[in-house]
Amino acid sequence: MTIDAALTELSALLGDRLSRSKSDLEAHGASEAHFAPAPPDAVAYPESTDEVAQVLRICHAQGCPVIAYGAGTSLEGHTGAVAGGLSLDLSRMNKLLALRQSDMQAVVQPGLTREVLNRELRATGLFFSVDPGANASLGGMAATRASGTTAVRYGTMRDNIRALEVVLAGGRVIRTGSGARKSAAGYDLTGLFLGSEGTLGIITELTVQLHGQPEAISAAVCGFERMADAVDAVVAVIQIGIPVARIEFVDAETVRAVNAYSGTDLPLRPHLFVEFHGSDSSVAEDAARFGEVVADFGAADIGTATRPEDRTALWTARHHAYWACLGLRPGATAIVTDICVPISRLAEAVEETRADIAASPIPGPILGHVGDGNFHAILLVERGNESELAEAGRLAGRMAERALRLGGTITGEHGIGIGKLAHMAAEHGAAWEVMGEIKHALDPANILNPGKLVPGP
Amino acid sequence: MTIDAALTELSALLGDRLSRSKSDLEAHGASEAHFAPAPPDAVAYPESTDEVAQVLRICHAQGCPVIAYGAGTSLEGHTGAVAGGLSLDLSRMNKLLALRQSDMQAVVQPGLTREVLNRELRATGLFFSVDPGANASLGGMAATRASGTTAVRYGTMRDNIRALEVVLAGGRVIRTGSGARKSAAGYDLTGLFLGSEGTLGIITELTVQLHGQPEAISAAVCGFERMADAVDAVVAVIQIGIPVARIEFVDAETVRAVNAYSGTDLPLRPHLFVEFHGSDSSVAEDAARFGEVVADFGAADIGTATRPEDRTALWTARHHAYWACLGLRPGATAIVTDICVPISRLAEAVEETRADIAASPIPGPILGHVGDGNFHAILLVERGNESELAEAGRLAGRMAERALRLGGTITGEHGIGIGKLAHMAAEHGAAWEVMGEIKHALDPANILNPGKLVPGP
Repeated sequence: MTIDAALTELSALLGDRLSRSKSDLEAHGASEAHFAPAPPDAVAYPESTDEVAQVLRICHAQGCPVIAYGAGTSLEGHTGAVAGGLSLDLSRMNKLLALRQSDMQAVVQPGLTREVLNRELRATGLFFSVDPGANASLGGMAATRASGTTAVRYGTMRDNIRALEVVLAGGRVIRTGSGARKSAAGYDLTGLFLGSEGTLGIITELTVQLHGQPEAISAAVCGFERMADAVDAVVAVIQIGIPVARIEFVDAETVRAVNAYSGTDLPLRPHLFVEFHGSDSSVAEDAARFGEVVADFGAADIGTATRPEDRTALWTARHHAYWACLGLRPGATAIVTDICVPISRLAEAVEETRADIAASPIPGPILGHVGDGNFHAILLVERGNESELAEAGRLAGRMAERALRLGGTITGEHGIGIGKLAHMAAEHGAAWEVMGEIKHALDPANILNPGKLVPGP
Repeated sequence: MTIDAALTELSALLGDRLSRSKSDLEAHGASEAHFAPAPPDAVAYPESTDEVAQVLRICHAQGCPVIAYGAGTSLEGHTGAVAGGLSLDLSRMNKLLALRQSDMQAVVQPGLTREVLNRELRATGLFFSVDPGANASLGGMAATRASGTTAVRYGTMRDNIRALEVVLAGGRVIRTGSGARKSAAGYDLTGLFLGSEGTLGIITELTVQLHGQPEAISAAVCGFERMADAVDAVVAVIQIGIPVARIEFVDAETVRAVNAYSGTDLPLRPHLFVEFHGSDSSVAEDAARFGEVVADFGAADIGTATRPEDRTALWTARHHAYWACLGLRPGATAIVTDICVPISRLAEAVEETRADIAASPIPGPILGHVGDGNFHAILLVERGNESELAEAGRLAGRMAERALRLGGTITGEHGIGIGKLAHMAAEHGAAWEVMGEIKHALDPANILNPGKLVPGP
């Protein structure tokens, strides 16, 4: 019962779709983040659910770890083969299997990326709303319960996945959920697999909920004197119930980066970027009400954009903020933190984080999906500078502790991977053990992404 | 290790809050539905989480079944003590523990009912949206993943519970979720307990999401020549994205009952009842767009109501439809079915059900939350008439099969209890076994609501 024995069997099954090439192993063991490389022993490229089931049967029998791999855009080291084994690359299972126009649903394979899906949907009047920034695979987004800029209006992956096909550790194939919009028929297994990060099963098919492309879109941007004013303005907007489609905060440092990167000339102060979806009249009304609310918090320089090209320029600048921030310190590597707090504690959380970073030697612009109480600091660490890396780790750790102290969560959307594992006991207490018990029930041999998410056996 | 030994220990713990009175046992073993009485051996009235934990420790050690009991409004026999044991009546744990106005959240105990919660919230500008009709307890609504008329806009219990405190079978107390609006921190245990019907743990505290009371509400009602036209109009409304807060279908037979019961004079044809929430201008715009869409499907007699008293009269008539339908056959007992299908198959599902009931000797008005694809037939069976009861069971069974054939689910909101248990394998296949494995991991002695929801051991 060894990894080698598994690979021999897998090679017979998959032929040249089992790769042991150095470049493949390195690519699948690397991460977009700062984690040490953890290459697998081999990479498999299955092309069907049946093949995934056969792979899992072999690996289960041989005790060979299996790590699902989508587009590799994780920021928390989800895909590293920390115990060796097989990287299961699902990028060849990337078909749009069915479009159910009347139900506003699509059935997709896990390797399909969200940008490709939305391209395919362009002529249908529908779109897939969840937008984490990166062109992630839909399977990966489901496995990490991803969200992003539009979650405040359209929800996270938890709200936009209706059904799954999942292969369990021993090779059993199950279906969860249905095409119905709701159900009270037993445990919500769909919800259990969303966010399970490949530790409970391999997602091989997803039924995703789509939304109608809005008839009209308008966008606005406005600046604030103080960060707390911007954040408090967001809280007021949410409480009053203005149906913002996106509402994004960027601090003054992010604005500086964005101006340099995207050629905008926003004043160097905290800003909100906001977008409204609806009819011509409703977006105009929403924008007007938004303007009134933020004016109470001292908003200045309120710029609106209803022409598509202006809107696109505005949101492209926001979407490129990560790259813009990297440009603040050429050659730096970014540690992107991710916490989420109750919105009543958001201003406090952002201010404390700002002060903590200001007292450190590391630049760390802050931005986030503040309508959900979720924000990130992009900690810019000199590449190879171990002392800065350690300092960034301490800043990130204090952010996680802060989130818990304020009644929130250590991750709003990036997930646990190996980056947040040390904080799971603090967030969940005895409930973390329960996660381990569920994991053990479904994967007793612990072959699915071992070393991640649950307590060690 | 016996139930008797458990009751002796429980009596020492709870004193006169452990009841063995005949009336208590009968009340807790009865159901609002047609199921045979299944009284427990005793009823416990705990007053704190700690007491619940002690009760579960005793019952776990003695192998005594524990059945959570809220307001007793279940329609599928959830609370019957089919294996004897203890009914755990949570009605004394009925406090509003905290109101977090800025986060629009409330922390409540499980025995608090939704009507009492909304009464307490009246002055706050906030409300709890989930409305299953009955004045159910919030713990029971969570345990059955309840929904109702407003789910199309505000979501089901799955969308409106942020965090739980749960006591597990052995007495461990865990907390799931947080006050943050989203999280990617591990398995969604909150979601797992929602809909678990007391088989995985006892919910002892809930953090519920509230919504701002809308600034303006308007309502409309309209009739259609054919049932299929009404249903197709709903599908169009949803697809176009008109943000209806409620959209309810009633068939001509229900209209007849409602007219007789509530003194309305609606034409005897299928109708839609609809409500819009927003600002004065947005609800007017929504109502106008709605009128245009339904006119394309031949809607007639479009009546609108913006004055609160007219709106209340309209919706009171809808809310009393269940009682009105009972009045169609004096002395009858009702078997309320509950299926949910993809909205593209809704017209087909309703039409087939209509025809099937029409061919039977049993009256069965149809109504439902059609924006979700969810509808009910209220099968009116002569009390004590075994052959009619059997016929109603066959009709309900064919509805469940129809839901599955059309890609839907056997229950949209009423849950499984014992009423739908026979259809679980058909809906979930191997995934039902997985539910059993999770149950076994968390409740190895099978003391929590045994005989419900999961496959027999």
